[in-house]
Amino acid sequence: MLCALLREEIIKDVSKTGGHLASSLGAVELTVALHRVYDTSRDRIVFDVGHQCYAHKILTGRRERFDTLRQLGGISGFPKPCEAPDDACISGHASASISCALGMARARTLQGEDYDVCAVIGDGALTGGLAYEGLTNCGESGEPIVIVINDNAMSIGENVGGLARLLSHLRVRPGYIALKTAYHRSIGRYEHVYRFLHRIKERLKDLVMPDNMFEDMGFYYLGPIDGHDIRTVTRTIRYARDLRCPAIVHILTVKGKGYPPAEKDPALYHGVGPFDPETGVKAGQKEDFSHSFGAALCACAESDVRVCAITAAMMDGTGLGSFALRWPKRFFDVGIAEGHAVTMAAGMAKQGLRPVVAVYSSFLQRGFDQLLHDVALDGLPVVFAVDRAGIVGADGETHQGAFDVGYLCQVPGMALWAPSSYAEMKTMLTLALAGDGPAALRYPRGAQGAFREDTSASDAWVLRAGTDCTIVSYGILINEALKACETLSAAGIDAELVKLNRLDAPDFSLIAASAAKTGRLLVAEDTAAAGCVGTRILAELEKRGVGLKNARLVNLGSGIVPHGSVPDLLHMLKLDAQGLATAGEELCR
Amino acid sequence: MLCALLREEIIKDVSKTGGHLASSLGAVELTVALHRVYDTSRDRIVFDVGHQCYAHKILTGRRERFDTLRQLGGISGFPKPCEAPDDACISGHASASISCALGMARARTLQGEDYDVCAVIGDGALTGGLAYEGLTNCGESGEPIVIVINDNAMSIGENVGGLARLLSHLRVRPGYIALKTAYHRSIGRYEHVYRFLHRIKERLKDLVMPDNMFEDMGFYYLGPIDGHDIRTVTRTIRYARDLRCPAIVHILTVKGKGYPPAEKDPALYHGVGPFDPETGVKAGQKEDFSHSFGAALCACAESDVRVCAITAAMMDGTGLGSFALRWPKRFFDVGIAEGHAVTMAAGMAKQGLRPVVAVYSSFLQRGFDQLLHDVALDGLPVVFAVDRAGIVGADGETHQGAFDVGYLCQVPGMALWAPSSYAEMKTMLTLALAGDGPAALRYPRGAQGAFREDTSASDAWVLRAGTDCTIVSYGILINEALKACETLSAAGIDAELVKLNRLDAPDFSLIAASAAKTGRLLVAEDTAAAGCVGTRILAELEKRGVGLKNARLVNLGSGIVPHGSVPDLLHMLKLDAQGLATAGEELCR
Repeated sequence: MLCALLREEIIKDVSKTGGHLASSLGAVELTVALHRVYDTSRDRIVFDVGHQCYAHKILTGRRERFDTLRQLGGISGFPKPCEAPDDACISGHASASISCALGMARARTLQGEDYDVCAVIGDGALTGGLAYEGLTNCGESGEPIVIVINDNAMSIGENVGGLARLLSHLRVRPGYIALKTAYHRSIGRYEHVYRFLHRIKERLKDLVMPDNMFEDMGFYYLGPIDGHDIRTVTRTIRYARDLRCPAIVHILTVKGKGYPPAEKDPALYHGVGPFDPETGVKAGQKEDFSHSFGAALCACAESDVRVCAITAAMMDGTGLGSFALRWPKRFFDVGIAEGHAVTMAAGMAKQGLRPVVAVYSSFLQRGFDQLLHDVALDGLPVVFAVDRAGIVGADGETHQGAFDVGYLCQVPGMALWAPSSYAEMKTMLTLALAGDGPAALRYPRGAQGAFREDTSASDAWVLRAGTDCTIVSYGILINEALKACETLSAAGIDAELVKLNRLDAPDFSLIAASAAKTGRLLVAEDTAAAGCVGTRILAELEKRGVGLKNARLVNLGSGIVPHGSVPDLLHMLKLDAQGLATAGEELCR
Repeated sequence: MLCALLREEIIKDVSKTGGHLASSLGAVELTVALHRVYDTSRDRIVFDVGHQCYAHKILTGRRERFDTLRQLGGISGFPKPCEAPDDACISGHASASISCALGMARARTLQGEDYDVCAVIGDGALTGGLAYEGLTNCGESGEPIVIVINDNAMSIGENVGGLARLLSHLRVRPGYIALKTAYHRSIGRYEHVYRFLHRIKERLKDLVMPDNMFEDMGFYYLGPIDGHDIRTVTRTIRYARDLRCPAIVHILTVKGKGYPPAEKDPALYHGVGPFDPETGVKAGQKEDFSHSFGAALCACAESDVRVCAITAAMMDGTGLGSFALRWPKRFFDVGIAEGHAVTMAAGMAKQGLRPVVAVYSSFLQRGFDQLLHDVALDGLPVVFAVDRAGIVGADGETHQGAFDVGYLCQVPGMALWAPSSYAEMKTMLTLALAGDGPAALRYPRGAQGAFREDTSASDAWVLRAGTDCTIVSYGILINEALKACETLSAAGIDAELVKLNRLDAPDFSLIAASAAKTGRLLVAEDTAAAGCVGTRILAELEKRGVGLKNARLVNLGSGIVPHGSVPDLLHMLKLDAQGLATAGEELCR
């Protein structure tokens, strides 16, 4: 059977490459049903977040290459139109599918074309405000469009929120759809009769029938149905498509379906590294920056009762598991709602708490206005733990933490720290919490490297003295820069390495003194060129009249950083030790 | 009567200073009721957007100074804690109040304090996703908190969206609240009886009683009630406060209440300049950048059927009125939902349309992630008409368009144009629409100045040749820079003026040649220091080895720009002709 084969393929390949296993397994029947109803070469299926798209990729000409999933140059773990015309749009952030699909449906109608549009969104993504904005506008649009709510009663971890409650009400109403479709079908042939009855029904409904938010919004609601019953799912989606109005199909699925270990612990199997399919993924605390942050925050919370923690559906990912267990009342998971997380933190800070918002770099982009408007205008002491800053690796372009240095340094009064080791994480978090305004720490996915020191005592630090060129770097890249210095040293080039701890206001005097001495400057950063620290350093040198013989900024550039392993990407971007050493050599030539 | 006096005072002062008249008039009884229920010296009332706070300001010690409203150094038109402890937080952007109030309520509870928290939000602001995120989290929080929905059936213009529809359902259910409070009151004394009955009621409700989204979310819902019946409003808010749970009080008000011209045309009286209270505000098309954009877009839409327009509840403000009349099917007002506007535009662009999103600079901050994730990753040709860029004047810190240059230039592939005249608006919009990737035009509030030329043919332009110093500027500031050049010329200083048209990739060669010639550089910009073009110019000069005798960046700085008239603020920031001339002189000393 097709579904079983798809599952086998997914488990086999993902166990080698790593990836989003549980979501994709849960959406296998749905995906097959979608392909039975829609022609993805012209109809547009917009997968929300997109990490449930593996079966879709296998079904649309990418089976052969599926074992290159998430590898540099291989198949992306998210929909990507340049891979195949069957992928409607790039996606990776939650809650955007309805808005995007509505735009597509409107384009279709305006241009008089007749393809169909369908958005597939999980119940978790419905906690995001963007999904609500999309639903609101979509319901009143009158556009023929189908929204499939893939409801597994959890987002990435446990689900929260008002809509979750609504969905759970709806879940207990089986049979409703059968009644409804039968009613509509039997009456549908007599259009004028239907319209008349519909008007009466609408009037009566408020009195005799349970209301439903989706119907209030203007949708025709169908559900809930068993999302693993492929015939019912196919029939219902087809039925919804043919209604020619905004319609919602609410299906119930099991995350991890078909692979017992994943069904049992879907959160563990949400995003996995390579594993043995026989024995499964091994749980267990990894030592990485996220967990070092979690531990550091626990230490701060121990000594300061004002400290509390906020996450947007990423408790485990941000290392807040222990905190949540120890201080459940001081821990707040707001669901996929980064904007709300930031503004709520502002309210807490205003009233005397010390909230710490732990969020991934690329997701905090959703809270940019809230950073500026709700936190910064009043200079409130909210601390942001910006995880997955810089290169995230296999998740690719939608998840790279490429922009945080630029947008965080735009926030008035924001102190931005870049810990390079767990020891620095601890000290810098303490310093950030001791400040009286907004502060952020940016740190990468993964573990610390050879550098384990704590240099937090100063905003910048000469890690290695030298005379031939100045290398400025920060965060995890310090490890590559240190190795590059060794390589350069072996080649007879004596590099001075300046490590930045504060990025909002780098110690320009120290950098200027070093640059004036060596006359050559290389700034290595794991952030986009626009908004990078290097530009500010060069500008400051120009202002101070420090002339250079040669200068080079090495960073993530002005393009989009694709998926691939972190070492592969560092190498590609010439940000690894070898690339930096080469740049240093060229600088000194 | 107090309310009549408050209205008189508001009309008298606002007719002199200008301001948000209609909203504040509609909220007079509500404000008095809030002050009867709450002690604003300790209880926290969070006004959403905040422009309805005039009566609150008069009631909290600011009556004497109220005639300084929106003037430099005077009373702000929005809540501002540094003015009075009665203002809970800074506000100015819509939809944030519930999140902020929830944060405050959580701080209150965690710290064992007993003050009350209340958020006041308009029905318009409820279309924003942030409000939904806040509601969702608030309803399930169990926190004692009151959300007053001030429902005047419109946001700034006409209202749209699913929640608007829900509210209109609720509006027709008078008497519901009386029944409900009576039930709760009579039963409330017998707590265990109440709980038992409540459980039964919950079971029965789904069968016999119309559901309500707010109740699904976990709120106790009270309403709708007449928002101008001060006794009922006071009693209901007090009742809601004493429930000690998340409660919603839904009141119906008339925008502009008590001033017949404003009641008749509340949109016209939303934000007004000074006017004669006897004759009222004169309607009529103003000639400004917004309307020049609207006209330019109509011209483009005429010749290209793919062009369509999107606004987030700012049809009039962004000058799209004529477009909407002419092409209603190509015009989309999505309500206060900037994120959705951007993502929907991405979907439209992906399918072949040429959407133009017209939005204020400070509000587009809400769409930052959508710019990066939904538009830029796939390089989609969406055009952004970024109105109110730079200094907006009397609306102050929450509305200043201070950050757009920085955040728009962070967006990969974004072309950023800065028209200085209506003629340039027209050409640059055409150029932006002709491109094959994202593009934006930033332009200020208000009218063009003496400069009326069209220099769009080149990315940068030497407007005035000179030998002593180079002044670089763009947009509306070109007018000040031109005048400064004259002043400098009279003082014997021959300044060269370079006008930038493209800000994402300024013509560095032209600037470098000029700077190399004069050896002195002044960059004048109406944007924040972080992310300004001047920094990039200096960095580029350093890289190219162009040494300068002197350099100065004049811009909005790294702090917060307060409210005041545009000329006053320009003067304060030394960005007016006089300030720039002085800077030029100092540069050449």
